[in-house]
Amino acid sequence: MELLKQVIRQKAVVRPGDVLKVDSFLNHQLDIGLLNEIGKEFYCRFRNKGITKILTIEASGIAIAAITAQYFGVPVVFAKKNHTKNLDGELLCAPVTSFTHGRTYDVTVEKKFLGPGENVLILDDFLAKGSALTGLCDIVEHSGASLGGIGIVIEKGFDVGGDLIRARGADLYSLVRIRSMTENAIVFDDEV
Amino acid sequence: MELLKQVIRQKAVVRPGDVLKVDSFLNHQLDIGLLNEIGKEFYCRFRNKGITKILTIEASGIAIAAITAQYFGVPVVFAKKNHTKNLDGELLCAPVTSFTHGRTYDVTVEKKFLGPGENVLILDDFLAKGSALTGLCDIVEHSGASLGGIGIVIEKGFDVGGDLIRARGADLYSLVRIRSMTENAIVFDDEV
Repeated sequence: MELLKQVIRQKAVVRPGDVLKVDSFLNHQLDIGLLNEIGKEFYCRFRNKGITKILTIEASGIAIAAITAQYFGVPVVFAKKNHTKNLDGELLCAPVTSFTHGRTYDVTVEKKFLGPGENVLILDDFLAKGSALTGLCDIVEHSGASLGGIGIVIEKGFDVGGDLIRARGADLYSLVRIRSMTENAIVFDDEV
Repeated sequence: MELLKQVIRQKAVVRPGDVLKVDSFLNHQLDIGLLNEIGKEFYCRFRNKGITKILTIEASGIAIAAITAQYFGVPVVFAKKNHTKNLDGELLCAPVTSFTHGRTYDVTVEKKFLGPGENVLILDDFLAKGSALTGLCDIVEHSGASLGGIGIVIEKGFDVGGDLIRARGADLYSLVRIRSMTENAIVFDDEV
């Protein structure tokens, strides 16, 4: 996705430890015009898949999922990272290790919001080690729903997550795939 | 907002301890059509206020803010509840006590995303005791930005938050205001 590559080149910042800061447009401040273009792109790719629900994970996935869901005309469910008083039904859970926060936690979805007959599109902002995405795939599998596809905004192609998820047989589509990144240059996959 | 009252009457569930579960349409599963109507309603109310940015708080506020921002044509910033490796700039912080999670934590916004010259619309799903909203108002004040208004989807009118926020002089608009609720009946403010 050319527009996304341009924005990443202009506004993303590479930090030591393979951290790509996209907080000025994707996961702290949100560029809503860009999110609309992202939503259209996911819709073009998955429009014929019979998607009935979009699943994402709080917090950064929510805006991407909500904006994209407008094109599909389907509801969003976002997996939660903390149990709250408000989660009191039967739960679908999966452990996720966060690279950013440096800890492992359960992500949960109430069972009544995902089940047989649903065809799910999973959306998220990043794919690196693939822990969050594996958790979401496991939740879809346990729910009895089918996995219609996975849309990722930025895949770190040099990390293990993409191979891990593709090995499950999932239809994974990343809008951009980063081959390498340094403070001075971000190289995308189809440019080398 | 009539549509919202209808949806709340049909789908919300009242639990002991003044908990109103709206997880089937507002804060776990998201009814995107309803969010669009909510966004239009906030736009009608605040369109002439010269809003330049929408501020909300993760996680439940994000979808509401992102969908609404499309009508205003402005970016969203969402305050974070946890410090992460990715927050490395100068921070604006405020303490917030969560009624749902039963704990106090700092909410943070990177200073570079909010400052003088901005006119901010704060959006959130619930107003009850007003702690999260007070934190967001404090952050706007500390940033040097002006507060253009506050939009709330559901105000618990029987709790203290509304009075607390209105006493600050803020232009607070709640789409629905609940006067009382029991397992059998939810009474809205303009129906008594």
